[in-house]
Amino acid sequence: MKDGTVEEGVKEALNGRAEGLLAREVREGQRALAAADGERRTAVLRTLAQILGAREAEILEANGTDLDEAERVGLSGPLLHRLSLSPSKLATLREGVLTLAAAPDPLGQVQRKMELDDGLVLSRVLSPLGVLLIIFESRPDAVVQIGSLALRSGNGVLLKGGSEALHSNRILVRCLREALEAEGLPGGAVAGVEGREAVGRLLDLDELVDLVIPRGSAELVRAIQSSTRIPVLGHADGICHLYLDRAADPAMAAHLAVDGKCDYPAACNATETLLVHREFLPHLPGVAEALRERGVVFRADAEARALIPDAEVAGPDDGRTEYGDLTLAVRVVAGLNEAIDHIHAHGSAHTDAIVTEDEGAARRFLREVDSASVFWNASTRFADGYRYGLGAEVGISTGRIHARGPVGVEGLLTTRWLLEGRGQGAGDYGSSGRSFTHRLLEGS
Amino acid sequence: MKDGTVEEGVKEALNGRAEGLLAREVREGQRALAAADGERRTAVLRTLAQILGAREAEILEANGTDLDEAERVGLSGPLLHRLSLSPSKLATLREGVLTLAAAPDPLGQVQRKMELDDGLVLSRVLSPLGVLLIIFESRPDAVVQIGSLALRSGNGVLLKGGSEALHSNRILVRCLREALEAEGLPGGAVAGVEGREAVGRLLDLDELVDLVIPRGSAELVRAIQSSTRIPVLGHADGICHLYLDRAADPAMAAHLAVDGKCDYPAACNATETLLVHREFLPHLPGVAEALRERGVVFRADAEARALIPDAEVAGPDDGRTEYGDLTLAVRVVAGLNEAIDHIHAHGSAHTDAIVTEDEGAARRFLREVDSASVFWNASTRFADGYRYGLGAEVGISTGRIHARGPVGVEGLLTTRWLLEGRGQGAGDYGSSGRSFTHRLLEGS
Repeated sequence: MKDGTVEEGVKEALNGRAEGLLAREVREGQRALAAADGERRTAVLRTLAQILGAREAEILEANGTDLDEAERVGLSGPLLHRLSLSPSKLATLREGVLTLAAAPDPLGQVQRKMELDDGLVLSRVLSPLGVLLIIFESRPDAVVQIGSLALRSGNGVLLKGGSEALHSNRILVRCLREALEAEGLPGGAVAGVEGREAVGRLLDLDELVDLVIPRGSAELVRAIQSSTRIPVLGHADGICHLYLDRAADPAMAAHLAVDGKCDYPAACNATETLLVHREFLPHLPGVAEALRERGVVFRADAEARALIPDAEVAGPDDGRTEYGDLTLAVRVVAGLNEAIDHIHAHGSAHTDAIVTEDEGAARRFLREVDSASVFWNASTRFADGYRYGLGAEVGISTGRIHARGPVGVEGLLTTRWLLEGRGQGAGDYGSSGRSFTHRLLEGS
Repeated sequence: MKDGTVEEGVKEALNGRAEGLLAREVREGQRALAAADGERRTAVLRTLAQILGAREAEILEANGTDLDEAERVGLSGPLLHRLSLSPSKLATLREGVLTLAAAPDPLGQVQRKMELDDGLVLSRVLSPLGVLLIIFESRPDAVVQIGSLALRSGNGVLLKGGSEALHSNRILVRCLREALEAEGLPGGAVAGVEGREAVGRLLDLDELVDLVIPRGSAELVRAIQSSTRIPVLGHADGICHLYLDRAADPAMAAHLAVDGKCDYPAACNATETLLVHREFLPHLPGVAEALRERGVVFRADAEARALIPDAEVAGPDDGRTEYGDLTLAVRVVAGLNEAIDHIHAHGSAHTDAIVTEDEGAARRFLREVDSASVFWNASTRFADGYRYGLGAEVGISTGRIHARGPVGVEGLLTTRWLLEGRGQGAGDYGSSGRSFTHRLLEGS
């Protein structure tokens, strides 16, 4: 055995230990944050907004360092745009923090309250999840957006940003920690994480980290999902369908196809596959023309190609691909059953929509399609936390457990059951003793 | 390479394929079950109760075969008791099925409804999770109890019981399938699974199975949690604490300690560790005497041993062990902070209780203890789905994601977002267009 190997082993063990200590420190800090009054968490957020304002010059300077380096290594326009902070972006971030400060404290909110017996009352209350590991790509704004959501909901947070935003992320994490400390809470409830190896080791700590939220490419999400036992809130794929039923209004069909595909083709909720009822085919050329005018190119089956002469021949992966651009798969189906079967077989259970004037068909589609979001006569692009009125969006989940579809702050919360009695024992109830009243006081 | 190896490889591949096909068949059946009207699922349950009555003799005969074999291999009394079915147990099971038949259909229930804009309405509705894998030990009753819960909630279910109940489980699974088929639904929504290897292969199919519910020993649950990427609903440990505060009422303290430890010592919600405030020590001998009368033996730290002379010396594992019998760890603490820290460091976040007349101390305990159930002046034994008024109990979860504490039928459900519009596109909103109203119609 070479000396180098031993040294690396020791280094690795020490590093693993370092991440364990870091996560434990976040957990300790989180417990203090969660134990504090809601007003104190509000004060932390207000102070954070102040600090972000007072240190704007430093933040922009750190961001400038990242931008210089990014330009030096030849990062492209859209990535540079995502990386860059500006006085107006910072003002928007501060506003967001103040909006959260003004929002009601979710912790301790009662979801359900039941009298089990006279003087024995059970409540289910909202509680923080615990320690979150957030992994995001270039946008340093995410540090403030997710960090402040975590603070509002009493969670501790490990923040791992892209290396290209290293300096920006560092100073923003420092602002979050200072805001906590200014209000007498441990800054350790928030921690920055640097380096891929550190993330790998944190993903092993399923006893210390409660939820991983990856924000970024499908590849990032898939890589994380397949390398951890910790629950992951996110979606790898967004293969969304628009089904034009026999009874679809042709103008509406064209409008929703164009909006779904062209409004923002790179988004996960963009339409990727158009399913067309055979009896709607006479109207397909009009829909295709509207799409073509917006630059859409088609990958269609033989039957649809007869009506869209410029369509390419659909290959085996068309109809189950997230293009992320102006490519659209087109496939003809015999009816509602075939459309639903196609969606279940090839979709990603993200968002699927039907266009029809036939309420019966719509009700069946809404009932049977097993996706996080299912729409009738609306664009797939509506699947979004802001549009759903959830306030801040933590992410969109295609998992079926815990949170599904666009997820707001409730995705960062769990519940606890609180029981208040007068000394009752379980043995006091049953055959020979008292019986339960089970009278619902609030909630469902 | 030996021929045997090749053959085994082929056999294994075919077997793996067999479980995949089985899970797919359950998924197909589940989709039909979920798409059916609630009345049809109700009819399935009513028919199931009839079939269980009509085939009682056959069921008891199959159970007799299992009991004979169990006696032959020398199974002990309590295990035989759990394995055995009787006319009265079957009557109770049928009653349970009819109660579920009479319960409201959860599917499609609206949790939240919001107008996003005029003619654009978003609802979040309850939906089945999908395919459940239930793994349980000797009690064949579980086939009917969990099978009927799955049917009520539109889920498909793979049922793996203990091999000692093979014949009983087989006929009960057959009854469930016949009830489905009698109502024109695919019997394949319910399937029995036999053999440990088959379970192992199903635990690999995280694309096809949505939730695993192990019901049995802590060892069973731990083994499953560490061998699958599928979410597991359950709890491995129940290390529950009773904290006797400085301001505890001595008589109540004794009553709750006796109930928590002695009412059913093998239960996961039994009290395992007594934490005693130093200022309560003068009352400890009385509490110990009440426990001693019920046969409790003590493992205590030095300070507590001074007052409980017959206590054994606590070893390093006492205070973080689920004894499951009449052993009780006793530990003196300086106050509320130390009690909470001990619970966080050594508990299993299952159920923890404080005994005190000091409301301030109680409120802090209820707020800060991060366990699924947290009680004030009530026995830890109340943590139970029936006592919580949840109706049927699916299990008790110490996970923080999806469901926490005692879990009723809602643990088998997820949600979907349904949006009904009039042809709106997302691009119709924003800077130049319409704006959202986000008016809450129902729910929170």
